[in-house]
Amino acid sequence: MPTYTAPVRDSLFVLNEVFGYERYNNLPGFADTPPDVLEAILAEGAKIAENVMQPINRVGDLEGCVRADDGSVTTPEGFGQAYQQYREGGWMGLAAPAEFGGQGLPYTVHTAVSEFMVSANMSLMMYPGLTQGAIAAIVTHGTDEQKAKWLPKMVDGLWTGTMNLTEPHCGTDLGLLRTKAVPADDGSYRISGQKIFISAGDHDMAENIVHLVLARIEGAPKGVKGISLFIVPKLKLDAEGNPGEGNGVSCGSLEEKMGIHGNATCVMNYDEATGYLLGEEHGGLKAMFTMMNEARLGVGLQGLSISEVAYQNAVAYARDRLQGRSLSGPKAPDKPADPIIVHPDIRRSLMTMKAFNEAGRALVLWTAIKSDIAHRSADAGDREIASDYTGLMTPIVKGVLTDKGFEHAVMAQQVFGGHGYIEEWGMSQFVRDARIAMIYEGANGIQALDLVGRKLALNGGRAVQAFFKEVGDFCEENRSDEKMAPYTKGLKKGLNDLQAATMWLMQNAMAKPDNAGAASTDYMHLFGLVALGYMWAQMVKVANANLADGASGDAAFYENKLVTGRYFMERVMPETAAHLARISSGADTMMALPAEAF
Amino acid sequence: MPTYTAPVRDSLFVLNEVFGYERYNNLPGFADTPPDVLEAILAEGAKIAENVMQPINRVGDLEGCVRADDGSVTTPEGFGQAYQQYREGGWMGLAAPAEFGGQGLPYTVHTAVSEFMVSANMSLMMYPGLTQGAIAAIVTHGTDEQKAKWLPKMVDGLWTGTMNLTEPHCGTDLGLLRTKAVPADDGSYRISGQKIFISAGDHDMAENIVHLVLARIEGAPKGVKGISLFIVPKLKLDAEGNPGEGNGVSCGSLEEKMGIHGNATCVMNYDEATGYLLGEEHGGLKAMFTMMNEARLGVGLQGLSISEVAYQNAVAYARDRLQGRSLSGPKAPDKPADPIIVHPDIRRSLMTMKAFNEAGRALVLWTAIKSDIAHRSADAGDREIASDYTGLMTPIVKGVLTDKGFEHAVMAQQVFGGHGYIEEWGMSQFVRDARIAMIYEGANGIQALDLVGRKLALNGGRAVQAFFKEVGDFCEENRSDEKMAPYTKGLKKGLNDLQAATMWLMQNAMAKPDNAGAASTDYMHLFGLVALGYMWAQMVKVANANLADGASGDAAFYENKLVTGRYFMERVMPETAAHLARISSGADTMMALPAEAF
Repeated sequence: MPTYTAPVRDSLFVLNEVFGYERYNNLPGFADTPPDVLEAILAEGAKIAENVMQPINRVGDLEGCVRADDGSVTTPEGFGQAYQQYREGGWMGLAAPAEFGGQGLPYTVHTAVSEFMVSANMSLMMYPGLTQGAIAAIVTHGTDEQKAKWLPKMVDGLWTGTMNLTEPHCGTDLGLLRTKAVPADDGSYRISGQKIFISAGDHDMAENIVHLVLARIEGAPKGVKGISLFIVPKLKLDAEGNPGEGNGVSCGSLEEKMGIHGNATCVMNYDEATGYLLGEEHGGLKAMFTMMNEARLGVGLQGLSISEVAYQNAVAYARDRLQGRSLSGPKAPDKPADPIIVHPDIRRSLMTMKAFNEAGRALVLWTAIKSDIAHRSADAGDREIASDYTGLMTPIVKGVLTDKGFEHAVMAQQVFGGHGYIEEWGMSQFVRDARIAMIYEGANGIQALDLVGRKLALNGGRAVQAFFKEVGDFCEENRSDEKMAPYTKGLKKGLNDLQAATMWLMQNAMAKPDNAGAASTDYMHLFGLVALGYMWAQMVKVANANLADGASGDAAFYENKLVTGRYFMERVMPETAAHLARISSGADTMMALPAEAF
Repeated sequence: MPTYTAPVRDSLFVLNEVFGYERYNNLPGFADTPPDVLEAILAEGAKIAENVMQPINRVGDLEGCVRADDGSVTTPEGFGQAYQQYREGGWMGLAAPAEFGGQGLPYTVHTAVSEFMVSANMSLMMYPGLTQGAIAAIVTHGTDEQKAKWLPKMVDGLWTGTMNLTEPHCGTDLGLLRTKAVPADDGSYRISGQKIFISAGDHDMAENIVHLVLARIEGAPKGVKGISLFIVPKLKLDAEGNPGEGNGVSCGSLEEKMGIHGNATCVMNYDEATGYLLGEEHGGLKAMFTMMNEARLGVGLQGLSISEVAYQNAVAYARDRLQGRSLSGPKAPDKPADPIIVHPDIRRSLMTMKAFNEAGRALVLWTAIKSDIAHRSADAGDREIASDYTGLMTPIVKGVLTDKGFEHAVMAQQVFGGHGYIEEWGMSQFVRDARIAMIYEGANGIQALDLVGRKLALNGGRAVQAFFKEVGDFCEENRSDEKMAPYTKGLKKGLNDLQAATMWLMQNAMAKPDNAGAASTDYMHLFGLVALGYMWAQMVKVANANLADGASGDAAFYENKLVTGRYFMERVMPETAAHLARISSGADTMMALPAEAF
């Protein structure tokens, strides 16, 4: 059975030491989490993750969700109880506004804790995760009445939320959607249509489920400009605002999936269900993106979370499994063989995962801090800069962290040899669960297109130029520091490749958009490597400074950072050149064959 | 439901046009397969694969194998019948010696047909696949009496075979194995112990099962020098050589696996079972490698087979699924959206798979031809050169083709978006099935070590030097051919990187073996890229020549090769530089952390 220990020390290192969390005390919520409180929250979150969520992760995979003939869905044994503990602990409303019952703490803190929870039980955490997105959409686009009506119970976790976008013939291309909304006399709408792949679409853990549904109001323009977002509750509310009679909403079936069996992925049927317009008529896409952007960062986090838990289990196995002898002579001569962690190729896998996880954690938390600034700063300039950054990083965090998260789940599974392929060891579940994160909330190819086709040129390339300048300045500032040289050298090389690729796109993609599409996935990964490399350079700088200061008894922790960061530069960063070469080859060969020639 | 069409035309192109199959008519078996016969055999194999094997592939995944309380195992619905058709068609003995009832045709033909069969149903094909390995071991190491006793029924397919190596505490490190063999008075042995992960260990499709079991004879030396190989039948043979009373062999349980559910992966218990020594006392490792080398090429083929079938289904979906508009303007203006094959990032996936599959097919068939030369040539010099080549290529075919096969199954699944994650579409099965090929018959890390630690230096590096010379000469000979320049340039660059990496290993791995281990996986993939690139260069050369000759109505086929080969050079080969950079960084950082620091 897999195990999990939340990396609290590492999260605190990133927040406090690398990013100077206390610097943001001027933002709402941050001052409520001085170092001791921050640490206590993370430690408490770690406990729930390790002791409540993790032990039922495999149960969720084995049992899955079950739909009864009446359409009601039962979650796996123990899920309901664990969810109640999560809810009662106030974790759902950790970062939600106080006026709706939340604690108003930074999104950053929510993110740090969520990493632990998702590592422990990704399927279970999808129920509150989707609720977060729905809360964000209602906070941003709801009327005061809607907020008062829906948010307190959702923030409390008594009700959960969903996102209903996809239809059988329409996933990425939402302009094709057919679900229709007919205005009723009372100002509400009657929603009819079928949605598929609806995560947490029905279950037995909440009093009510608040579906946010994209639909087309009768007579609306075609395409994406004619879609609107609706609040469609599972149970309609009575005069007191309590769940009452049923609505025309039902789960038609559950999908048989490769993984995340503990989460109910529903086909949802809407049959003249009562819905309430959220945001503007035909403004559904914008409202949806409020949920979506939040959800994309959350999905990127899933990639990191699975990579971390899979890594931890690979380490434990590699220390324990005795097989073969070290190439440099026996390391455990008293045993029949050495533990496989002595073998370089096993190390290669472990170091690759470790180097990614620690930088990925920094990138996620840095993006979360920027998101807090973007939403909470009193300074419009600061908000703009932070918003630029989160907009730019959202597709990268989603696309790169989930691609790598899956790759690392596979890598960790490989460390187990044949046992990795046997379900009872739990490594297969990590692989099967991690796989979905590359697909949902916009498949990673869509993330890459969002980056190259939209984010790059936005506001004249302001966001990307700021990022290049920040990383370039960092390299320049640390140029004369000998201890930083091995790191800034690799980072600068990566940055040069990224800038060359960006220049190539500017010169070649305007006249020929296929060149942008052909470059997109490589560009996203190239960008991700530079962003992660930048995280490493910053962590190493702090580690060096702490070591120079005596490191107060924690020298091994900081030395570890120096080694792991160096591994990243030597073994991971060289990929940037391959990405650049592929990008620069353009779209011609890729597009040359007619469709029938495949 | 997935579909499959065997790429007969492409296999014939590779065999006849690229490698000049008829040139080998001096070898036994080749003359029996003139062009029309070869084509007929491939076409007939394609039919069985498409019409018999493929339709029950998903059934195998859904039903899996079932073990009854008495230890007997039932295979999925339809498997028995399909196996009988395969057997009765003479496919099991296609390449087996005529004296034991085989057809004595080239292993190359068997390989070409096997690709189709495995694409259609990997789980089912494992039953005959393991039998092939067992046949090879008995042919090579058996006494005349043993051959006469066991081979005819195995070649006929009435009996199947298995390989019993792994024990719970010992996989890679066979020196640790504990299964013991006690000599009996009649010259046989009593075998006792437990083996795990035994593919096709028990089932209901054959009269008898011939287990080849590694065990330690009482009093044998420790380590791998004390293990011997035994023939242990499920049912002992009576005086007429027919299966009679039961032996002390039973399937203790079936493993719950991530995939290949149609294959019975058994825990096998041996309780004083009667066994017969195969080969020399304490010579088990050598005998095992006879099976193993054959099996490794077969597993590499599995990687190619799954990559091909997954690719075909991704192509079909990409042509069919309407979503979004082409970046260069609508391509299907009469439809609500364009088929997704118009999008460059979808193309990127399809072309990557296609470029790999076609070169992988060539590499597998070329290695098969060399294997035929190594086993069948009358000329000792030719045998040596061919044997060098197959020895060198075995870990590369196994390691690279299975890593890539899995990667491409994932890539093909991604083309399906959310539908790829739903089991009924069948793409998840390809991913789950492909995963095992990276693990069994020596995990890919072991293949990489075999290459770097053994094959590279063997006979003073004779095999690798011959390969470098062959590829280098090819580049040189075609240097002045303008039409070849885009291909030889990429190939030469890759070869240079490979030679630089080889030089680095020579200079750095002798004194410090960890440098070899640290380089191994990257080196294997670097080698694989050059080998595949060399296949492309040869295919392009033939395509160019045929086009210059008018291409007799098949110009599109050859033009397609030029484009796909070019894609390989532009988009796949650049990875060689990243491999070289990683290799040259050495083992220091990788090995720096103590085990407890992970």
